[in-house]
Amino acid sequence: MALDDLIFGKALRSSQERAEQIGPAAGIPIFGLDALSSAGYGPEAALTLLIPLGAAGLGYIVPITAAIIVLLAVVFVSYRQTIEAYPDGGGSYTVARENLGESAGLLAASALMIDYVLTAAVGISAGVGALVSAAPSLQPHTTALCLGILALIAYVNLRGVKDAGFFFMVPTYLFVGTLGVALIWGLAKTAASGGHPLPVAPLPRPPAALEAVSAWLIVQAFASGCTAMTGVEAVSNGVKAFRAPSTRNAKLTLTIIIAALVALLAGIAWLARAYGIVASDPGAPGYQSVLSLLVGAVAGRGVFYYVCMASVLLVLSLSANTAFADFPRLCRSIAADGYLPAAFASRGRRLVYSHGLIALALLSGALLAAFGGVTDRLIALYAVGAFLAFTLSQAGMVVHWRRQGGATAWRGILLNGAGAAVTGATVLVVLAAKFLEGAWITALVIPVLFFGMKALRRHYERVSAQIAEPGPLALGGLTLPLAIVPITGWNKATKAALSFACAISRDVEAVHVAAENAGVDLRALWAADVEAPAAAAGLPAPRLVVLPSPYRYLLTPLVDRVLRAAQDHPGRRVAVVIPEIVENRWYNHLLHAQRATLLKALLYVRGGNGVVVINVPWHLRAD
Amino acid sequence: MALDDLIFGKALRSSQERAEQIGPAAGIPIFGLDALSSAGYGPEAALTLLIPLGAAGLGYIVPITAAIIVLLAVVFVSYRQTIEAYPDGGGSYTVARENLGESAGLLAASALMIDYVLTAAVGISAGVGALVSAAPSLQPHTTALCLGILALIAYVNLRGVKDAGFFFMVPTYLFVGTLGVALIWGLAKTAASGGHPLPVAPLPRPPAALEAVSAWLIVQAFASGCTAMTGVEAVSNGVKAFRAPSTRNAKLTLTIIIAALVALLAGIAWLARAYGIVASDPGAPGYQSVLSLLVGAVAGRGVFYYVCMASVLLVLSLSANTAFADFPRLCRSIAADGYLPAAFASRGRRLVYSHGLIALALLSGALLAAFGGVTDRLIALYAVGAFLAFTLSQAGMVVHWRRQGGATAWRGILLNGAGAAVTGATVLVVLAAKFLEGAWITALVIPVLFFGMKALRRHYERVSAQIAEPGPLALGGLTLPLAIVPITGWNKATKAALSFACAISRDVEAVHVAAENAGVDLRALWAADVEAPAAAAGLPAPRLVVLPSPYRYLLTPLVDRVLRAAQDHPGRRVAVVIPEIVENRWYNHLLHAQRATLLKALLYVRGGNGVVVINVPWHLRAD
Repeated sequence: MALDDLIFGKALRSSQERAEQIGPAAGIPIFGLDALSSAGYGPEAALTLLIPLGAAGLGYIVPITAAIIVLLAVVFVSYRQTIEAYPDGGGSYTVARENLGESAGLLAASALMIDYVLTAAVGISAGVGALVSAAPSLQPHTTALCLGILALIAYVNLRGVKDAGFFFMVPTYLFVGTLGVALIWGLAKTAASGGHPLPVAPLPRPPAALEAVSAWLIVQAFASGCTAMTGVEAVSNGVKAFRAPSTRNAKLTLTIIIAALVALLAGIAWLARAYGIVASDPGAPGYQSVLSLLVGAVAGRGVFYYVCMASVLLVLSLSANTAFADFPRLCRSIAADGYLPAAFASRGRRLVYSHGLIALALLSGALLAAFGGVTDRLIALYAVGAFLAFTLSQAGMVVHWRRQGGATAWRGILLNGAGAAVTGATVLVVLAAKFLEGAWITALVIPVLFFGMKALRRHYERVSAQIAEPGPLALGGLTLPLAIVPITGWNKATKAALSFACAISRDVEAVHVAAENAGVDLRALWAADVEAPAAAAGLPAPRLVVLPSPYRYLLTPLVDRVLRAAQDHPGRRVAVVIPEIVENRWYNHLLHAQRATLLKALLYVRGGNGVVVINVPWHLRAD
Repeated sequence: MALDDLIFGKALRSSQERAEQIGPAAGIPIFGLDALSSAGYGPEAALTLLIPLGAAGLGYIVPITAAIIVLLAVVFVSYRQTIEAYPDGGGSYTVARENLGESAGLLAASALMIDYVLTAAVGISAGVGALVSAAPSLQPHTTALCLGILALIAYVNLRGVKDAGFFFMVPTYLFVGTLGVALIWGLAKTAASGGHPLPVAPLPRPPAALEAVSAWLIVQAFASGCTAMTGVEAVSNGVKAFRAPSTRNAKLTLTIIIAALVALLAGIAWLARAYGIVASDPGAPGYQSVLSLLVGAVAGRGVFYYVCMASVLLVLSLSANTAFADFPRLCRSIAADGYLPAAFASRGRRLVYSHGLIALALLSGALLAAFGGVTDRLIALYAVGAFLAFTLSQAGMVVHWRRQGGATAWRGILLNGAGAAVTGATVLVVLAAKFLEGAWITALVIPVLFFGMKALRRHYERVSAQIAEPGPLALGGLTLPLAIVPITGWNKATKAALSFACAISRDVEAVHVAAENAGVDLRALWAADVEAPAAAAGLPAPRLVVLPSPYRYLLTPLVDRVLRAAQDHPGRRVAVVIPEIVENRWYNHLLHAQRATLLKALLYVRGGNGVVVINVPWHLRAD
């Protein structure tokens, strides 16, 4: 077994696509990790904003969570519709583009791309942040840990969808399972105690109220809690990853993910109120997360607590995986429409879109490195992207149903219309609530991506138009090229190039630039080794031209001569035949070949279609 | 006037060499800045080590300085001899190599290269350190200031020797002048006061003695003071930069530099004892340099003090210039002997060895960036290199005189022999005194450079041997190549390549790899646009070959086919004719052409001499 097969897995044939497809069991970890892990930070984000209200803030967590769950239900139902309508994978990009036009599609695409890059970075740094607060000695290695986990996730995904599903299955189910048990346990205790359970582990005393309740604070808490909804889009983008019947499997997967998420969110909110758990300030000493307080209060600090906390931590840092599952598919769709380089649309050795995968790893790795693995501040940025994409997708579905018509169209229009209205309103709320905190950055980057992709497609169109309609090949009257061989001396490499030049042309000129280190006089060698055999064979000998170079330039005199030759012989090609010494070891390559590369670049920049560059290699033997 | 002429100066013809040569007036700043600036830190370095002795330490500074001056005198006389004996520039490398053999030469070269890189980095960071301690608000910009000054020095040197001499003249003479005046002034006061002058500005009280005097402490102080001797080598390396009579001019320049340095060192030591100036701890609050205390004590804190201090600061940061004057010349000599790439031996547009200059700027810039501009710790490293080079050069001169023989040879043997013995002993002293402080790093890097350069030369020799003796060109029986044109579709770029292939061969094959995004069927187009015109012209039509690619590889199937074709046709060349779309703007170039470059690399790595790569450009029109 070759090393690369061992590391990256055996290359898969395009025809093996079906064997790589997955069912709901693997689909939940792959497409659901982001949504599910939201249970770990969404309620916490909302509760943190309620801290200034002290114990009084607890009264608001249940209604806020209820509002979020309603929103989630709307989005869920409408994404089920989307999966049905776009069985080839209907992410927001596809739906918006097909129904609302190019610009809406690209807007959704830009928003989603930013959302995914942020999801990957924030997920990993949140997980590592939790780990570091549990084991402070790891603090100095925060960035390294983040990048290590990022690399691991990227690697697992490069091995293909099947391997990734297998890898992420255990932590996902452990997380849902243990947290679910903790919540049921807590609810049972609450019921048994008549609504006022006693915590097993002591809880911090709620701080005194610092502020009066204001509507704006509640809106902000809601906006923060909405981060729990990112990742819901994922399944609709990846319908084709599921095995047949893929639509049914995708819908089933989405349903299970959302049901689990709703149960977790509702349970957390309810128990937080029942136990009187208020969030603590992440910057303050003795900080504990809401989940840690809650599980400790319900179950005490035993083995169960630690298993549960470990699974939260694991799922948080692996939630980046959803971005890895979706970002490459999104890029594929965009590239297929010509807004990104074509490479993003082709699958790598394990049938995943490796280019998009690696691009995501590089982008979020750069973010993590730039922020030293502490990306808390980025959280503010990313609900905007997700909700903008939601809104465009919902609005697109409304148009879709209207176009389709039929008896049941009114149901779709109603549902998706409601979804569009609610998510659109949420975009505005989140944008307003988070604008100064950083949402303005998203609002700034989205147009950059948007116009960048438009420009790229325009560029590709321009190129296609310019090379299109070549017409029939003209074979009559093909003239042999004029060959120019740049030489620095008379050696085997030069001779090989000259010999090739003589094979393809009767008009060969060897050009030697006499700069500083002129060395031997070539003329005598030329007479003996080139002109004499040519005379003997009765053929025209290649001419030797020595160019002076008073300013010691090595390439300029040569390029000038080639361009003049091209000018003097319009309609005839000038072939520059470059002798090149090729090393058997790549690192030795650095010592040669720079000049050949530079010469080619210069000839391309300054020359026209008539100047052809030929590289004749002369391979060195290994020692 | 073109922009590049304005920035870098008009390109100079090789024949303009003489106009760029300099006399002693410009030679002193160019080759003397490093040696002269040593007066700014050498005595301070020695005095710092005497701090633990308190006021008692002052008794030792005059004898230590006397020992350093004697050493300096020995080195000076022997370098005068060297200049005489090697009028083409006799750095330690040349002298050691010619007299002691290749290894001794390379050892000296390695030591000197390290010395110069350190000189540049340490000089600049010392100057900026002084500036920052005078203006603490600049502290956060230390690295940027260091790199800025480095870039400025590199730039001035790139403009040629004449411009550099002119630029560095003012600070150099201001430094020697003001410091000289301060010392004479102080000596006069000392004489007038009967040996016990009263300081104008208050001096810090000498600290209490913490340690007893030990011989080892005195030896360490001597070793630290020896850093004052680096840079003495410089003139001997650059004899050819002087105008005729170059030997006399170089000797005169060296004499003036050393005389000024000796006067400054002696004066500083004498006055430090007379005024009772002890060094203060650089880390402690209220730190002042010895020169600042001394000039303040002599002249008070008036305008003169500030002008003098400003010139010290300027000269310290510009002392890096000596490295810039010598390192490129050293590299030139080494490259001329084949131990470095040939580019180091060719002169740039202003007749300086630009490659060496830029290499030095990059290396010392990397050091400065890595250490954040605080290179105090590097000072320990660099006396070793300088003294090792001194020793080898002296020993080489001994052999030189013995070989030459004659009546006056005994004088040279005696002088240089003494020099070799003294400097050799100093190497051991410095190495022992500074080993743990960092001299071990130098002791480690020197062999790396040494063996690296040997390996490089061996590599070049191997290449020369393999391409040597090409023998006469064989013109009979040249066969046309077999042409393979990789195509992704049928367009103007493809057509241009195919047309060129048909011009140079009767045996043309167009290869299309059918990977994922197969697109249109080429066969119909081929029949109409290629086969039909070929039939009409009565010529063999280029064949269309469609290669399947079950694993979606784009290049591998193509490379495999080319290699098989080369195997099937031994003795015949296979020309791979690659159509290439060329952009009019360089940044658009990034979107194309990656595949062509990769294909060429693959063909080179896997193919042999029989596989020739032809690039046929198709230039896009500007919009």
